[in-house]
Amino acid sequence: MSAFPFEIHATDGKARTGVLKTPRGDIRTPAFMPVGTAATVKALYPEQVRQAGADIILGNTYHLMLRPGAERVKRLGGLHEFMNWDGPILTDSGGFQVWSLAGLRKLTEEGVEFQSHIDGSKHQLTPERAIEIQADLLGADISMQLDECTNFPCTKDEARASMEMSLRWGARCKAAFGERDTQALFGIVQGAVYENLRKESAQRLVETGFDGYAVGGLAVGEGLETMCEVLDYTVPELPADRPHYLMGVGKPIDLVEAVARGIDMFDCVMPTRSGRHGQAWSDFGPVNLKRAEFAEDTSPLDASIDCPASRDYSKAYIHHLVRAGEYLAAMLLSWHNIAYYEQLMARMRATIAAGTFDQFVTDFRARWAEGEARRG
Amino acid sequence: MSAFPFEIHATDGKARTGVLKTPRGDIRTPAFMPVGTAATVKALYPEQVRQAGADIILGNTYHLMLRPGAERVKRLGGLHEFMNWDGPILTDSGGFQVWSLAGLRKLTEEGVEFQSHIDGSKHQLTPERAIEIQADLLGADISMQLDECTNFPCTKDEARASMEMSLRWGARCKAAFGERDTQALFGIVQGAVYENLRKESAQRLVETGFDGYAVGGLAVGEGLETMCEVLDYTVPELPADRPHYLMGVGKPIDLVEAVARGIDMFDCVMPTRSGRHGQAWSDFGPVNLKRAEFAEDTSPLDASIDCPASRDYSKAYIHHLVRAGEYLAAMLLSWHNIAYYEQLMARMRATIAAGTFDQFVTDFRARWAEGEARRG
Repeated sequence: MSAFPFEIHATDGKARTGVLKTPRGDIRTPAFMPVGTAATVKALYPEQVRQAGADIILGNTYHLMLRPGAERVKRLGGLHEFMNWDGPILTDSGGFQVWSLAGLRKLTEEGVEFQSHIDGSKHQLTPERAIEIQADLLGADISMQLDECTNFPCTKDEARASMEMSLRWGARCKAAFGERDTQALFGIVQGAVYENLRKESAQRLVETGFDGYAVGGLAVGEGLETMCEVLDYTVPELPADRPHYLMGVGKPIDLVEAVARGIDMFDCVMPTRSGRHGQAWSDFGPVNLKRAEFAEDTSPLDASIDCPASRDYSKAYIHHLVRAGEYLAAMLLSWHNIAYYEQLMARMRATIAAGTFDQFVTDFRARWAEGEARRG
Repeated sequence: MSAFPFEIHATDGKARTGVLKTPRGDIRTPAFMPVGTAATVKALYPEQVRQAGADIILGNTYHLMLRPGAERVKRLGGLHEFMNWDGPILTDSGGFQVWSLAGLRKLTEEGVEFQSHIDGSKHQLTPERAIEIQADLLGADISMQLDECTNFPCTKDEARASMEMSLRWGARCKAAFGERDTQALFGIVQGAVYENLRKESAQRLVETGFDGYAVGGLAVGEGLETMCEVLDYTVPELPADRPHYLMGVGKPIDLVEAVARGIDMFDCVMPTRSGRHGQAWSDFGPVNLKRAEFAEDTSPLDASIDCPASRDYSKAYIHHLVRAGEYLAAMLLSWHNIAYYEQLMARMRATIAAGTFDQFVTDFRARWAEGEARRG
């Protein structure tokens, strides 16, 4: 019944590695999707994103519907053509961004009305419109259902009401999407940090039937331990033969812990946002290149990563660029960070395939803890 | 007597084309040098600068002595190593930047004292220190003498006094530089818009003896016509067998008119600065990509230029990126502009070599005038 074949090549504990096959190319899982909010992965050229190892990127319904406008993107040949990215694109539904608007939105059963953060103009997003924008106008390979995100923390009653709304919106998205051969639709599990709500949300989504299943409403301040608990009881409820996508996560350690719990796909603005703020990611955590200690450090960011930004420039030079506020600082650090994230996924795919993922996780946790201890 | 052989392969009227040979590579002339103020050509990777056709770039003594510091650059292996550029580098002496500081500087016969625009710290630049920074610490292939720039407009008395100071500083720079096999030193003609001062400045510089001769103090508001007049009477005073460098110029039409008057080298921040402000350069002048007319224009900036930024992205996409304030807007437009400038130099080299430069200039002036008329 699914649009995209999902081949699982190996498992190691709950961790899986495989390939999600799409008409625009294979997505090797576990996969990290760089975020191209406004039709660009910030400070990177599309070919750098591809060369860094990304098989798929994410686009944002909310941003693109406001600027340049979904109908305009359609007239310009769709999002792939518009932004020079011929690989698969997953679009979020806009639910999370609209939720972030707080006072500027009004929620009803029909959908959500909101004001543009750009010019204050009024817009509406319904499940049907979210599908039209993503699948028909932007031409996303993978569309996400419209969902309601819940505040953290929230009461169980609030979480249930919100989850029920998301389930009804999910069913409307499914109906609007219909059956398609070359595009997929993912549902989103909600339920905050309440085990029975998460399980019920997952089960009822599966009854509706989606091409993949996302876990939403995490990475909103609950912390790594709570996130892991939610994944521990949620992921087993999802069909094993469909991709599992953890939305908006996260730090490298979060990715490792989530893969160990059966997650196949991720997206996060962290590598590019950090890159614009002078930070380079590593197995030991973030490194702030602005620090004086790097002023005469001639070593590269990470010679083991096959990326010019990681390998060919000294920390001293990048330190200088950060201090001087130069474009090239953000360009090099964002590029390195995407390459690091993609290399981390490749290492997880390889160790799962080799049956040594447990050891990888143990070693990674140790490096991460060492980094945290060092930073104090 | 000169460090770098300068082979002139062809002339057409006053225009010349050839090669300035340096230990770090040949500089095809007429040459445009992208400006790498703070050890980076803003928003470009070094390999993009090279691929766009630049044989040499410019670095700024003033900026680099303040941050990261010339001694630090030396400890880090010199400017080439520091910024990953293995081709020739010309550094300006800092005279022009310090002159721009206005109230923050104090000029004496010895040199100039000034306050850093970054942290207000006090610094001194003398002819001897300017050479030490450029040739010994940064490791520039071509160093420029320290000069005093004159305000525009200025009286003839002011212009003479300033020119005399620059000549004395030039002689001190020459003495400090000494004789070097692998590095060159250029003198700078001053004299504002006074013909006899310019001629005298040129003649006395030649008596001192430099590896190349720059025309300074232009592009400060005098306009194209006056600039051409100054070049008309100044360039013939310069040794024909040495490179002629017009500092800080300019728009494409300025380059064409200056090459027609015997100039071999240029530098200007315009292509990269314009790129950060949404403008693309062309034979018809600047194009402001922010304008609504480009919102659905699927044509590229210039398909005739062998540069991905010029060829592979639609104006509609770049329009969107400019409106959204995305890094990629500055990255693509700066890259295109450098490629356009370098292609313009290549077209001039080719038409001079073919003996058709006159026709090229006539055609170029017509396109430029058409563009100006269109913009109104």
